[in-house]
Amino acid sequence: MKATKTNPGNYFEDFKFGQILKHATPRTVTVGDAAIYMSLYGPRFAVQSSDAFSKEIGYPEAPLDDLLAFHVVFGKTVPDISLNAIANLGYADGRFLVPVYPGDTISTTSEVIGLKENSNGETGTVFVRSTGRNQNGDVVLEYARWVMVRKRDKSSPAPAAVVPDLPDRVPPESLGQAVPQLNVSRYDMDLAGSPFLWGDYAVGEKIDHVDGMSLEEAEHQMATRLYQNTAKVHFNLHTESKGRFGKRIVYGGVVISLARALSFNGLGNAFHVAAINAGRHVAPCFAGDTVYAWSEVLEKAEIPGRTDVGALRTRLVATKNENCAQLPYKTADGKYADSVILDLDLWLILPRAEA
Amino acid sequence: MKATKTNPGNYFEDFKFGQILKHATPRTVTVGDAAIYMSLYGPRFAVQSSDAFSKEIGYPEAPLDDLLAFHVVFGKTVPDISLNAIANLGYADGRFLVPVYPGDTISTTSEVIGLKENSNGETGTVFVRSTGRNQNGDVVLEYARWVMVRKRDKSSPAPAAVVPDLPDRVPPESLGQAVPQLNVSRYDMDLAGSPFLWGDYAVGEKIDHVDGMSLEEAEHQMATRLYQNTAKVHFNLHTESKGRFGKRIVYGGVVISLARALSFNGLGNAFHVAAINAGRHVAPCFAGDTVYAWSEVLEKAEIPGRTDVGALRTRLVATKNENCAQLPYKTADGKYADSVILDLDLWLILPRAEA
Amino acid sequence: MKATKTNPGNYFEDFKFGQILKHATPRTVTVGDAAIYMSLYGPRFAVQSSDAFSKEIGYPEAPLDDLLAFHVVFGKTVPDISLNAIANLGYADGRFLVPVYPGDTISTTSEVIGLKENSNGETGTVFVRSTGRNQNGDVVLEYARWVMVRKRDKSSPAPAAVVPDLPDRVPPESLGQAVPQLNVSRYDMDLAGSPFLWGDYAVGEKIDHVDGMSLEEAEHQMATRLYQNTAKVHFNLHTESKGRFGKRIVYGGVVISLARALSFNGLGNAFHVAAINAGRHVAPCFAGDTVYAWSEVLEKAEIPGRTDVGALRTRLVATKNENCAQLPYKTADGKYADSVILDLDLWLILPRAEA
Repeated sequence: MKATKTNPGNYFEDFKFGQILKHATPRTVTVGDAAIYMSLYGPRFAVQSSDAFSKEIGYPEAPLDDLLAFHVVFGKTVPDISLNAIANLGYADGRFLVPVYPGDTISTTSEVIGLKENSNGETGTVFVRSTGRNQNGDVVLEYARWVMVRKRDKSSPAPAAVVPDLPDRVPPESLGQAVPQLNVSRYDMDLAGSPFLWGDYAVGEKIDHVDGMSLEEAEHQMATRLYQNTAKVHFNLHTESKGRFGKRIVYGGVVISLARALSFNGLGNAFHVAAINAGRHVAPCFAGDTVYAWSEVLEKAEIPGRTDVGALRTRLVATKNENCAQLPYKTADGKYADSVILDLDLWLILPRAEA
Repeated sequence: MKATKTNPGNYFEDFKFGQILKHATPRTVTVGDAAIYMSLYGPRFAVQSSDAFSKEIGYPEAPLDDLLAFHVVFGKTVPDISLNAIANLGYADGRFLVPVYPGDTISTTSEVIGLKENSNGETGTVFVRSTGRNQNGDVVLEYARWVMVRKRDKSSPAPAAVVPDLPDRVPPESLGQAVPQLNVSRYDMDLAGSPFLWGDYAVGEKIDHVDGMSLEEAEHQMATRLYQNTAKVHFNLHTESKGRFGKRIVYGGVVISLARALSFNGLGNAFHVAAINAGRHVAPCFAGDTVYAWSEVLEKAEIPGRTDVGALRTRLVATKNENCAQLPYKTADGKYADSVILDLDLWLILPRAEA
Repeated sequence: MKATKTNPGNYFEDFKFGQILKHATPRTVTVGDAAIYMSLYGPRFAVQSSDAFSKEIGYPEAPLDDLLAFHVVFGKTVPDISLNAIANLGYADGRFLVPVYPGDTISTTSEVIGLKENSNGETGTVFVRSTGRNQNGDVVLEYARWVMVRKRDKSSPAPAAVVPDLPDRVPPESLGQAVPQLNVSRYDMDLAGSPFLWGDYAVGEKIDHVDGMSLEEAEHQMATRLYQNTAKVHFNLHTESKGRFGKRIVYGGVVISLARALSFNGLGNAFHVAAINAGRHVAPCFAGDTVYAWSEVLEKAEIPGRTDVGALRTRLVATKNENCAQLPYKTADGKYADSVILDLDLWLILPRAEA
C-alpha cells in the first residue's frame, strides 16, 4: 500500500519525453451541459443553439459548443499535467476534428512532446499534446499546451531538453473536418443574426464586439467544476485569500468562452472554431471584472474541395474593465496593454455566399 | 461592406408600422433548460416537474414552464426591439397557445403594431406583437409589449402616431388551448401539494404567498443569458457602476418567474399560465433584494366546452424587501407602494372538481 | 373554505405516530439535473460521469449521483416535516436500493416512527422514515431522520413518547442492491482515476482529501432549489439578516455533496454510496466558507454472494476554513473540534481485484 491514496500531481521530473498519460474521468456531455454553458456565457450562434437550424443545413442535430468540448478535454488533463503548474504558458496547433453531440462521452490522453528545465533548477516547461476522443475512439479535438511545472526536488537531474516544433498556424487545408457538407441555401441569415458571410470579411478588418460581461465567483466556479477541472486556485478562498492575489483566479477557459460568446456581435456567422492556432492568457481575471473583446481578421482561406464554407483566421483579444473601442492590444514597446487578458489566434468557419 | 458588422440595435425612427422583424437565434429548449430554470427559481408545480404526473393526467410528458418559454421568446426580441430602449413599459394580450416540450425549437418574430413619438422629440413608444413558434410553425405563445426607445436623431420626423387597441384581458373563451383534455380523476392533489381546486377560490380572495427569495448577481445573469437576452444593463458592472443605479439591474423576467414560483404556496394547483393580460415592472430589482409575492383573485371563468379545468384571473404582485403580510399594492393617491416591483394580471388554469 | 390556502407546515402536535405523509412534488430527474449537480460540486466518479464507462462494466447507462437522488427525496419532505423545525438532528439507516437514471420520476412518502416531546414543553423530536420511489413504485432509497420541531401551542398535551430503535449501521448483507453485477475486468482504473480497489484499504486508515472548495450564496441557493427544498433559512436574506446568524444558512446537503465530491481524491473508486449509517450536521456553514474533508475507514465488509464489489464503512468528516491535514474531529473532552461541520458514517462500494 502506498503512503498516500491522494493524487499529489506530477512534478517536472515525473514527466518523460514520449510518455502517454491516460486521464480520468471519461465524461458524457449532454443537453444539460449545453444549457449550463449557455447560462454561463450566453453564446448565440444558431448552429449550436438550435436542432432545427442545424438539421436544415446538414447536421444531424445541434452540436455542442466547440469550446465546451475543449474545456472538458482540458479539465481532464489538470490532475496529471498542471496540478503543480505555476503558469499555463500557451496553446498551439489546436484542431477541432469531429463534432461533439449530446450523449457523446469524451476521454482524454496526453503525450509529453517536450521538456525543458529552467535555468533556476526549480521549474521546467512541459509540452504536451492532449487528445480528446469520443466513445467511438474518434479524435474530436487535439491541441498542444505548455505549462511551467515545479520540480519536486531541485537536485533532480535535468532531462534532455526537447522543444517541439509547433506550427504557427494550422494549415487551411486541414480545417473544417468537423463541419458536414452544408446546404448553404438553407442557411437563414435572419435566424443566424448576421448578414455577413465569409466573403464579407477582409484581412486587416478589426471588429469591436462592443458588449461587456461581468464575472461572478459562483459563475466561474460552476463553469470550472462543470469541466471537472480541479486546479485549486479557482476554488479555494481560504488559501487564495492568503496567496499572491488575495483571491481566487478565474479559469482562463472562462475568459476564452466569454470572449467567444461576445464575438457573436460582429462575427455572428462564424459558427465554428476550427482551430486554435496560438493562445496566451496574458493576465489573470477575477470575479468582479468585466470582460470585453475585439477581433482582427488576420487571414482568409478557402478550404480545398469546399465551396460551402471558408475560413477566417482571427485574433481574438479579451480585455478587462476597459472596453475595446480603442482596440487595446500592445503598446509601442511590444508589451501587452494593461487591460489585455487574452490573446487568441483562431481559425473560424463561416458559410460562403452561393455562386 | 458596411462600416460596422456589429448590431447597433434599432432606434425609434428605424421602426415602421406593420413591419415584421424576424429575430435571431432559434433556440432548442431541453431538459437542461428545465433543470436550470428549477435551480434558479424553485417552482414546484407538479405538471412541469414530473413526466409521470403529467402523463397520468393527459400530457405526453412534462411540458416546460410557461414562463421559461416566454423568456426565451422575449430574449430573442431584445437585440432588435429593446437594445436602445429606456424602459419596458408594459405587456398585454399574452397568450400561451401550445405546450412547449423538451427538444422543441423556438423562433420569434415581432410585428410593429404601434408607434408614438414622445413630445420631447427624443424618444418614442414602440408597440410590438411578438410571436414564438415551434419547429412545426405552431404559435406557442404571443404577446404585445411596448417600450420607450431612443431616437437616433432628434430631427427625424415623427411617424404617424398609431396606438394599438389592446384588450383589457384575454377573453376566457380563448384560454386553455395549451392544456390537453385532462383526466382529472387521476390528478393527485397530495402529489400536487394543494387541496384547493378551481372551485375553492373566490373573487376578491387575497393570498399572501409568504416566502421570500433573495437574488444574487450570478443567478440573474445566468437566467438572463439562458434566454439569450442581451440587454446590457443586466451584465456590465463596469458601465453600470457609473450608471443611474450604480449597479446591474435584474432582468424583469427574473422577478416574474420568482413571483410565479413563490405563488405555488397558495396556488399549488394553478399549474398553467394561460395568459398575461397586463403587466408592468413597477420598479427595478437588484442583487441582494429579497422578493415576496401575493395574489388577488380578480375573476373566475369557466372555459367553454371544458369541465376539466377552469380559469382564475389573478393579480400577482411582487415586492422587494417587504413581506406581503399587509398585501402592499397602491397607496391612497393611487401610486404603487414603495416596495412593489411587479404588477401582473394573469389567467391561470386549475383543475375543477369532478361533477 | 379554509382560512388560508398557504401551507403553514406541521407543528409537533400535528404529527401522529404511525402517520404516513405523502409529499408533493413528484420530480423527474434528468441529465439537466446531473449537469447542474456536476457544476455545483465537481464530482469525478467515473460511473456517474460517463455512460460509456458505466455500460462497459454492467450498467445500462450512467446512474445519477446517489446524493442527488437523496437530496431530491429529502427536499420533498421539507414542507411537511421540517418547515417549523429548529434543528435537523440526525440521520440513520439510510439505504440506496435501486439506481436512479435520467428520466426517472421520484416521489416521497414519510412515516412517523417516533415522537418525543422535550421537557420545555415548547418543542419535540419527530422521527420519520422517508422513502423515495421511482415511477415504477420501486423504493430507490430510504432513510430515517429526526428533527426538533416547534409546538404550535405549549399547552397541547404531549404524545406518548416513542423513540425508534435504529441500527448503528446498515448490515453489510443488505448493501449493494443498487449496483448491478459488475464486469470488473472492464473497470479501467486509469479512467476511474485511482489504482486503489477495495482490498487496498485498511480499517483505521485515514485519508486527508486535501482540496478545499469555497461556497457562494448563488451556488447553495441553486442547489437547494434544484431539490425543491423550501426551508426558509437558505433563501431569505431579508429575514435571516435579522436572525440568529445574520445571514442565510447553507443547506446541510450541500456540505454533504461537497465533502463527497472532495473525497474522490483518495477514494476514487468508491463510486457508490450504499448507505448512510449515521449523520449529523455539527455546525452551520455559510457562503464564503471553504469546505475540506477527510475520511477514516471504520470497517471493511464483503457482500454475501458477491466477489465483484466490497463495502468500506467510512467516517466522512467535513470542516470549514481549516484544512484536514491534522484530521480534525473531536477534542479530548469528546466535543467536536471547532472547524468540524459534518460527521457522516457511510457504506461505500468499491470494485474488488479479480481473483
